[in-house]
Amino acid sequence: MALIVAKFGGTSVASPERIKNVAKRLVRIKQQGDAVVAVVSAMGKTTDELMGLSRAVTSNPPARELDRLLSTGEHVSMTLLAMAIEALGYKAMSFSGRQAGILTDGTHNKAHIVKVDNERIQEALDRGFVPVVAGFQGIDANDDVTTLGRGGSDTTAVAIAWGIGADVCEIYSDVDGVYTADPRVAPRAKKLDEISYDDMLELSSAGAGVLQSRAVEFARKWNVVIHSRSAFSDAQGTFIKEESEMEEAVITGIAHDTSEVKVTIRGVPDCTGVAAKVFSTLAATMVNVDMIIQNVSKDGITDISFTCPEGDLGRAKETLDRILPSIQAPYYEVDTDIAKVSLVGTGMKSSPGVAAKAFSTLGENSINILAISTSPIRLSVVVDLAQVSHAVQCLHTAFGLDSDSVFEETQLSAEEIAAKMNKGR
Amino acid sequence: MALIVAKFGGTSVASPERIKNVAKRLVRIKQQGDAVVAVVSAMGKTTDELMGLSRAVTSNPPARELDRLLSTGEHVSMTLLAMAIEALGYKAMSFSGRQAGILTDGTHNKAHIVKVDNERIQEALDRGFVPVVAGFQGIDANDDVTTLGRGGSDTTAVAIAWGIGADVCEIYSDVDGVYTADPRVAPRAKKLDEISYDDMLELSSAGAGVLQSRAVEFARKWNVVIHSRSAFSDAQGTFIKEESEMEEAVITGIAHDTSEVKVTIRGVPDCTGVAAKVFSTLAATMVNVDMIIQNVSKDGITDISFTCPEGDLGRAKETLDRILPSIQAPYYEVDTDIAKVSLVGTGMKSSPGVAAKAFSTLGENSINILAISTSPIRLSVVVDLAQVSHAVQCLHTAFGLDSDSVFEETQLSAEEIAAKMNKGR
Repeated sequence: MALIVAKFGGTSVASPERIKNVAKRLVRIKQQGDAVVAVVSAMGKTTDELMGLSRAVTSNPPARELDRLLSTGEHVSMTLLAMAIEALGYKAMSFSGRQAGILTDGTHNKAHIVKVDNERIQEALDRGFVPVVAGFQGIDANDDVTTLGRGGSDTTAVAIAWGIGADVCEIYSDVDGVYTADPRVAPRAKKLDEISYDDMLELSSAGAGVLQSRAVEFARKWNVVIHSRSAFSDAQGTFIKEESEMEEAVITGIAHDTSEVKVTIRGVPDCTGVAAKVFSTLAATMVNVDMIIQNVSKDGITDISFTCPEGDLGRAKETLDRILPSIQAPYYEVDTDIAKVSLVGTGMKSSPGVAAKAFSTLGENSINILAISTSPIRLSVVVDLAQVSHAVQCLHTAFGLDSDSVFEETQLSAEEIAAKMNKGR
Repeated sequence: MALIVAKFGGTSVASPERIKNVAKRLVRIKQQGDAVVAVVSAMGKTTDELMGLSRAVTSNPPARELDRLLSTGEHVSMTLLAMAIEALGYKAMSFSGRQAGILTDGTHNKAHIVKVDNERIQEALDRGFVPVVAGFQGIDANDDVTTLGRGGSDTTAVAIAWGIGADVCEIYSDVDGVYTADPRVAPRAKKLDEISYDDMLELSSAGAGVLQSRAVEFARKWNVVIHSRSAFSDAQGTFIKEESEMEEAVITGIAHDTSEVKVTIRGVPDCTGVAAKVFSTLAATMVNVDMIIQNVSKDGITDISFTCPEGDLGRAKETLDRILPSIQAPYYEVDTDIAKVSLVGTGMKSSPGVAAKAFSTLGENSINILAISTSPIRLSVVVDLAQVSHAVQCLHTAFGLDSDSVFEETQLSAEEIAAKMNKGR
């Protein structure tokens, strides 16, 4: 008998009909003789609707109140799922984050789990129930409801899996696993059977939307095996775990990210402390600078470029408008038509020449590199937005990732993947 | 400085705009130098919508899950109200039934409050906050959310008022107080400045919809002064309290109730034990029998009539279909076109002749009495539905309740009163 945690996202529980389907799936797991704990997100657009109500009342809701408001979304979905399981003749019981023992710090809206106390879940399991747990939320030391921020339900599932010692934490969504690249831009992308935590983390933070990196971090820390799989089929998905037992490829996958913008400050005097001033001020105003490129100086004047998330651009511009006079730089330019392409693989550490091969591949394909950054297991380049698909495809081929058959039969529709990219919690 | 509990029903918080109005009202109380705790119901039709979701999943939801589901309605309204108060520059903090210390027994869907532990409310008051409490709900000894049943938010407000020793429990609704009769049927009805708990209880259980009788029972038990008033004006409403300081009228008010039906069993053999068998069987099937009338026997055969709530009629008919053969009664008839009119007044105890005066008044007005029942402070008669308005009016006049001016300027529309009659929680 296996002990399974099964997490279902908002799309999977978006309607009473879908909730009944999830209940059937959970009952099948029970019928196989396994024990299962379900973790759910709020139904479909519930969170947006609650945010809308809040906005109709105030533009500046207190974080504590907003957390309690948003937490109701999962209370609704968890009770409906428990009812649906009972309607199939199996025992079920819903638990809020508090009742499930998800204890967090007091950072409302993006709380961190500090302790997991799954006594009631364990007791319900012992009595043959299917515990249904509200994702995305916990309780702080003041006995106030907190929420865990984006991807929080995945984190809840991993925390519960760790707390009860589950064999696997199954994350059901509308994609059927982790791919070597986004199948929308790389038709020869193939599904990975397994991927290491480190590779998954780099892929997630480089733009792959399938799993929230925070949940993967937790899984790595607590050594919880994640199985990322489709809510709409029984096919095996991708296991995320400590050590891949497969022969290690140099490159595990290629992620791309079109959500960043590039800012170039022109005519900066090339003297000590200017770059420090620019980037410390940006950091102080919460601009998340990703890559930095400084050109070779000419006549004591240089250009400084950096990339940051598009959402931070407003703050970046305010900051630059304020400090540019003091560093005597005449102006700056913003380029929103860029994309970051990242090669990820723990195998990279023991394989020199990845960068050289990547650069020459891009060069042969007339793709201009606008910026470069690296980590021990990642190589990222910034290219023109118009060339992102071409860049992913030629690198995918060059590093031997192509599937034998062109990806088509199981290819997700653009809508399905768009839904995935926008998925909340 | 007064300490006030202010309860707002679903109509008063039905939209973000109305919630902002409630916030303004609470801020005005603060500006007067008083301290206030708000208690709220769920927004408008929220409870119906949640019930609809539940019905879409199962026809037989487990009571524990249904309670948790319904409790989210008040969590939404309480957080929005707290946000709206903060937006006006005042400190506010929402509390679920659990956080507010409403401890109940484990009777899901209609739990009883067993203990009130308002530590957090008191602490928030001490720090200058407006605590906003979710009505209708509590927590049981298993740490599971319970709901208090119909009128539950009024009960929460009274319990909190008792717990913190409030000077008054203000119940805001879309009616501006307790009237001597329903202004829809008695245009000369007048608003009462005060009414005793006992009179209010009899009026509520005889059909007056303004306050839930359970909340009044709690208020009597705990000696909490209730002020029933309008959410949409500043006019004083009606105080419900132990002893009225006004000169005591024989009759305080007249209630009517059109929700009952009359069932008549024809041709019942007039022998020992038949009535006992009928009514004990009806009680066993949860039919709430109100009045019983047995005609004078003729040739050893009689008729037995009783009234019960229309909602119990289905069960009553099933029961009668089953037992009629065994008591050898040939058939029964159902009359749904009846109404109960009740005279209520603690003054009745010391004033003989109320029944005589009522019967002669009805007789002079050609109103036929179909059944009679009494308590020490209530006299109820059943009349034809078509005559209910006439009956209330002539009794209202005969017992000196008429207002000097015909009720018109402040008369509620039929829609407003209909909304009141159907109000939930």
